[in-house]
Amino acid sequence: MPDLDDVFAGLDRLRIELPSWGFADTGTRFGKYLQDAAAITLEDKLDDAAEVHRVTGCCPRVAVHVLWDFEGEEAGDATQMATARGLRLGSVNPNLFQHQCYRLGSVANEDASIRRRAIEHLLRSVELGRAIGSDVLSLWFADGTNYPGQGHFRRRKRWFESALREVHDAMPASMRMLVEYKPFEPAFYHTDVADWGMAAAFARAAGPRAKVLVDTGHHLLGQNIEHIVAFLLDEGMLGGFHFNDRHYADDDLTVGSIDPYRIFRILFELVQFERESDQVLPIDYMIDQSHNLKPKVEAMIQTVDTVQAMLAKALLVDVEALESARRAGDVVDAERRLADAFATDVRPMLGEWRRRHGLPTDPIGDHRASGHVERAAATRLGRKPSSGGSYA
Amino acid sequence: MPDLDDVFAGLDRLRIELPSWGFADTGTRFGKYLQDAAAITLEDKLDDAAEVHRVTGCCPRVAVHVLWDFEGEEAGDATQMATARGLRLGSVNPNLFQHQCYRLGSVANEDASIRRRAIEHLLRSVELGRAIGSDVLSLWFADGTNYPGQGHFRRRKRWFESALREVHDAMPASMRMLVEYKPFEPAFYHTDVADWGMAAAFARAAGPRAKVLVDTGHHLLGQNIEHIVAFLLDEGMLGGFHFNDRHYADDDLTVGSIDPYRIFRILFELVQFERESDQVLPIDYMIDQSHNLKPKVEAMIQTVDTVQAMLAKALLVDVEALESARRAGDVVDAERRLADAFATDVRPMLGEWRRRHGLPTDPIGDHRASGHVERAAATRLGRKPSSGGSYA
Amino acid sequence: MPDLDDVFAGLDRLRIELPSWGFADTGTRFGKYLQDAAAITLEDKLDDAAEVHRVTGCCPRVAVHVLWDFEGEEAGDATQMATARGLRLGSVNPNLFQHQCYRLGSVANEDASIRRRAIEHLLRSVELGRAIGSDVLSLWFADGTNYPGQGHFRRRKRWFESALREVHDAMPASMRMLVEYKPFEPAFYHTDVADWGMAAAFARAAGPRAKVLVDTGHHLLGQNIEHIVAFLLDEGMLGGFHFNDRHYADDDLTVGSIDPYRIFRILFELVQFERESDQVLPIDYMIDQSHNLKPKVEAMIQTVDTVQAMLAKALLVDVEALESARRAGDVVDAERRLADAFATDVRPMLGEWRRRHGLPTDPIGDHRASGHVERAAATRLGRKPSSGGSYA
Amino acid sequence: MPDLDDVFAGLDRLRIELPSWGFADTGTRFGKYLQDAAAITLEDKLDDAAEVHRVTGCCPRVAVHVLWDFEGEEAGDATQMATARGLRLGSVNPNLFQHQCYRLGSVANEDASIRRRAIEHLLRSVELGRAIGSDVLSLWFADGTNYPGQGHFRRRKRWFESALREVHDAMPASMRMLVEYKPFEPAFYHTDVADWGMAAAFARAAGPRAKVLVDTGHHLLGQNIEHIVAFLLDEGMLGGFHFNDRHYADDDLTVGSIDPYRIFRILFELVQFERESDQVLPIDYMIDQSHNLKPKVEAMIQTVDTVQAMLAKALLVDVEALESARRAGDVVDAERRLADAFATDVRPMLGEWRRRHGLPTDPIGDHRASGHVERAAATRLGRKPSSGGSYA
Repeated sequence: MPDLDDVFAGLDRLRIELPSWGFADTGTRFGKYLQDAAAITLEDKLDDAAEVHRVTGCCPRVAVHVLWDFEGEEAGDATQMATARGLRLGSVNPNLFQHQCYRLGSVANEDASIRRRAIEHLLRSVELGRAIGSDVLSLWFADGTNYPGQGHFRRRKRWFESALREVHDAMPASMRMLVEYKPFEPAFYHTDVADWGMAAAFARAAGPRAKVLVDTGHHLLGQNIEHIVAFLLDEGMLGGFHFNDRHYADDDLTVGSIDPYRIFRILFELVQFERESDQVLPIDYMIDQSHNLKPKVEAMIQTVDTVQAMLAKALLVDVEALESARRAGDVVDAERRLADAFATDVRPMLGEWRRRHGLPTDPIGDHRASGHVERAAATRLGRKPSSGGSYA
Repeated sequence: MPDLDDVFAGLDRLRIELPSWGFADTGTRFGKYLQDAAAITLEDKLDDAAEVHRVTGCCPRVAVHVLWDFEGEEAGDATQMATARGLRLGSVNPNLFQHQCYRLGSVANEDASIRRRAIEHLLRSVELGRAIGSDVLSLWFADGTNYPGQGHFRRRKRWFESALREVHDAMPASMRMLVEYKPFEPAFYHTDVADWGMAAAFARAAGPRAKVLVDTGHHLLGQNIEHIVAFLLDEGMLGGFHFNDRHYADDDLTVGSIDPYRIFRILFELVQFERESDQVLPIDYMIDQSHNLKPKVEAMIQTVDTVQAMLAKALLVDVEALESARRAGDVVDAERRLADAFATDVRPMLGEWRRRHGLPTDPIGDHRASGHVERAAATRLGRKPSSGGSYA
Repeated sequence: MPDLDDVFAGLDRLRIELPSWGFADTGTRFGKYLQDAAAITLEDKLDDAAEVHRVTGCCPRVAVHVLWDFEGEEAGDATQMATARGLRLGSVNPNLFQHQCYRLGSVANEDASIRRRAIEHLLRSVELGRAIGSDVLSLWFADGTNYPGQGHFRRRKRWFESALREVHDAMPASMRMLVEYKPFEPAFYHTDVADWGMAAAFARAAGPRAKVLVDTGHHLLGQNIEHIVAFLLDEGMLGGFHFNDRHYADDDLTVGSIDPYRIFRILFELVQFERESDQVLPIDYMIDQSHNLKPKVEAMIQTVDTVQAMLAKALLVDVEALESARRAGDVVDAERRLADAFATDVRPMLGEWRRRHGLPTDPIGDHRASGHVERAAATRLGRKPSSGGSYA
Repeated sequence: MPDLDDVFAGLDRLRIELPSWGFADTGTRFGKYLQDAAAITLEDKLDDAAEVHRVTGCCPRVAVHVLWDFEGEEAGDATQMATARGLRLGSVNPNLFQHQCYRLGSVANEDASIRRRAIEHLLRSVELGRAIGSDVLSLWFADGTNYPGQGHFRRRKRWFESALREVHDAMPASMRMLVEYKPFEPAFYHTDVADWGMAAAFARAAGPRAKVLVDTGHHLLGQNIEHIVAFLLDEGMLGGFHFNDRHYADDDLTVGSIDPYRIFRILFELVQFERESDQVLPIDYMIDQSHNLKPKVEAMIQTVDTVQAMLAKALLVDVEALESARRAGDVVDAERRLADAFATDVRPMLGEWRRRHGLPTDPIGDHRASGHVERAAATRLGRKPSSGGSYA
């Protein structure tokens, strides 16, 4: 039976990487939702991330986006900006979907010059990662097709394998490559890296330091995500997470807002693995959400708080009792071991953990009282576009 | 057993309304796909629609979007522009989602002043419709919430009912209101008009000239759309269609590109109803697609061609034989009546119908040879934005 | 801010009706799972229900199934058997799917004599309800088709309307009719009562005492059930629930086992309505699950415990604070009002409530210690079939 | 541009294996649908298969089910029965789900003795395959869990790997193992072989002669099956198909009845691969359907006819023109290459192919006129159970 020390030790180990783009204005194809305090520059984003880290204490790393954060930014300046705020730059995220040249694909484009351009961008991202001291290259590809017949599935697959191998070969030994999968959007007939099986095949083709990135929102309705996570763990192919929640598609809502029991079960698979193997999994826990309606920093703090709470619950599962119920074929008792841990109110424990670390016990309240949002709005509003764009 | 005359008579009756926005650049939240020849102004769009009508002969009406087409356009000018191209302006589509004020809802916003503003926009749309001689007010609401707790479902429902009643009362007797439903996007937890049942309830609350608009892409995976269509027909509540196709969500692909048998079955429900009742259904057939990768005009011509082909197949179903198989409980034969009609190659019939109407027998080929796209690109390219925007 | 008294008052009002068939052996098309202690006769089922009621104190009513419970049983005997166990017979469930004559439909069959037979069965069920003092006729229809073309949707709809009207007219004034919907299974192309909109239309056509029954497992993936519940509430058309949980389709798992937050949100819609209207909703709360692997009685006790816990959490929502966050457009705070109530550990409250009512504080433990299962197995095993059947 | 000879050559190569169980009574958990002429014994099934082969000419092989076909049958007798009817016995299908001992799993059961029993059954199936001259062991596992916590995903995975390796080692060199996947049913929380990625991992763990079996109905809604097929082809891991169609879940409807364009696209992936590689794929084409409402033999003939028609259409795709449109980035033209082939009415070609092979040009009509069903009913009816069972 786990005790408070187990929970605290688990919370101590948890590091959640924040996405720089989670502080910027986002939306849907019908338009962006503009917030006065939304970040515009990398500096803004680091300011916001520092605020999240200030009240949560577990978010020292910020994922960066090559295109959105490093047009005009020098790697050295960026690193320095992060350090000055007590942060480090984390995973490097190339962008192979925004330029119009990629409308029919990036590394899977029929046009060899565009494939080359895409690979060069990936190689530059490796260099950028090296320059900022990042050890993770995080790859999401929008490649796919919208209509039957449009693309040659197997040829595109070969191009993917070859591109990933080339990029893998160029990575320093300290760098890992994460391959993300997604069933659809922005492509609506087929997506080249559509599911975990394809991501794992591509990662294997790339090389030994390539693993699979599980974005919790990138699954068809009905898919059992924790089972996939366990399978990848056993294959040695799980590399990291993009956490978020969803009701329908890749809704990018805040973690646990729709189905908190699911995220609890996912985290429990990791806890169980670490308990059994007595090792800490070399896995990156990252957030990837679209804060369309919630204030950006607040949404991020709420998310971190939820992940901590769900991890605390997962750490409370009585694994021995669970295992003995499983061995006895006692379905009700096995399930109750999970349900009981989930039913536990871990807010007092989290409060105590925060007190011990000198953190605010009410992170959102502390943030609201800090004046951060008002200050951000004051300095950013003047720099913003006046429109969120239009659908057509 | 239907003959060629039945098919031709059915094709003669078919009028498909084109959406002005289908000729403009569109995309996903990850960015717009820019095409050199995409339309920018209402005049561009009418030029494109005229080209579609020129080669198909069945698209004399163009749906307009209040915000995108009438900022700065006078109703009179617009009508004149349409007439000059042999077209008429069709359904009027208000926009209650683009302005930032609507981020938490339009007619279902908690803020009474925003609800009022939304209703005023609807009333202005009625006036615009009157001014351009339109008889259809086509309503799609993006209203919804992203998180549990965010909204009070029943209170929002009441606001919807009251707004629609007020607008219905303001419509001239010749105008019909169509209420569209959609399960999700851009709202990701709940959408106020989420399914046909809600749309029908709101239409009934609005008044006798309010009916339901079925967008074929606005259904959860698995929903049997033709059954819904038949149910609405029997309730006297079917008002019109937004045609498109999809594989996953509201993908807005061109009609029949993913599941042509589905659109055939939907059209057959209408054919069967008209055969039985010996009446022509007062239903609006409209296209609503997002031509992200396909050239706009070409995609529209292909779509019209597909709808015509699927209608021709539906008209070929031997309804008497079908009914007798149904009565006999012969499942295989009943199904084969549909399958046989669907298996028929109607391209020669369509060709003959076009010849008789002096239309090009190969509409896409004729369009490609016409130089329309090249001319459009030449005059439009200079007026375009240079970027498709960014996700964050 | 609700207090313990509010929670206890809510728990005091909660009555959950148990399904007699939930104690019998069930399975999938691949075979039944046989349990030694599963009930065979109505008497067995009442014994089991009494055991559930003994340890939970809130399940005095048992839903009965006309075909499975009343072949050979006299209404009077059954009532007496129930009374002797401190129970009452509840909703009456006709069966219009088991006989081979219904393979192509019951009240929607093309054969008039089968439609008549189906209606007669419904009328007999009304009489049975009258005889056993039941006030609810609970209707689930398996009617549908497996193949396009097989059925005439609108004709079948008319037959449904007429059958339900006839049955409604025959019901005593004290009896209510509940119309259940389901998207698919056992029909796999279309189901005549496929969604809440169809069920509501049929209920309205039947008469004023017909309402909609929401089975939580009878929805397509992605449907927002609590929104439907709220919509039906506002329309005055919500009649009752069949509770269960699911991951994929109509899996009939125990309540809250997959998504406990969902059932909490559904119950909160009811709590919120009752708070606002200061009335107790005339709604039937029933269980409908398939206990394939869990011991029957244990699964039922676990389910009742879960519904109580989720109701307690729903009763703890601070509705005033929620409303004020909604009015202020504070999405995070509105959501947190739900999330906070859900995060509360209500097990101590439930324990106290049970103590006050002289009930065992650990219902499953008490049941396990009671020897009920062993006794049941001893008397039932000899009466059981030796095989669970086969798929083909 | 393919011509008639290409189509005929493709049809000549097509061999479709019939499932013995497709001729027996099947149903849903709510009961079996009984048909007078449904097969009961293996001999009945071979009689029915022979009838299908008689009118289609392309179904010489019959898949057998170890439990349902070989209880009491000697391998030698069965082979002789098949030969006498001009048939051969095909893939061998073990059954690890019907016995009650497997309720918590077969090769993934926590109980070592049940795992052993399951493996022994698999080994006996290998022996049976050897005895009847079969070269395919076709494995579908129902193993899974119904509730969170019930099973240990990774431990179960290891048991699967070890069991499959043992069985693979025992197979003669001429035998191949096919591993089938399925997302759910009869397990409703997790299924051990849930998707193609898991099946491929298990097949690789088993050995070089293990491949993946794609059942077209075993996918979540939205999954792009032809993409999976192409991916498996490129990995060298595609072993065979179970064809059927579905609207919702694993509905087991007849091929092409719901979405004929899908099956066309799947077959086109195979055609394209064979054209490019100039080889005939060593793939097994099998039917696996549940003929609940359609007469068994008729449903099977209709299915074979549909597969032939869809293959003929796939063979008609102008691959050169398709490739050149793809290379040019012409999305519309690439799609039209598929759509045009699909729009072609291949019924005359199929008729001609049948004439050349001395087969009836109207297979269903010929079958109906043959008196087969009446004879079958006359001899089988007396041997049938009188009830289709009950749900509870």
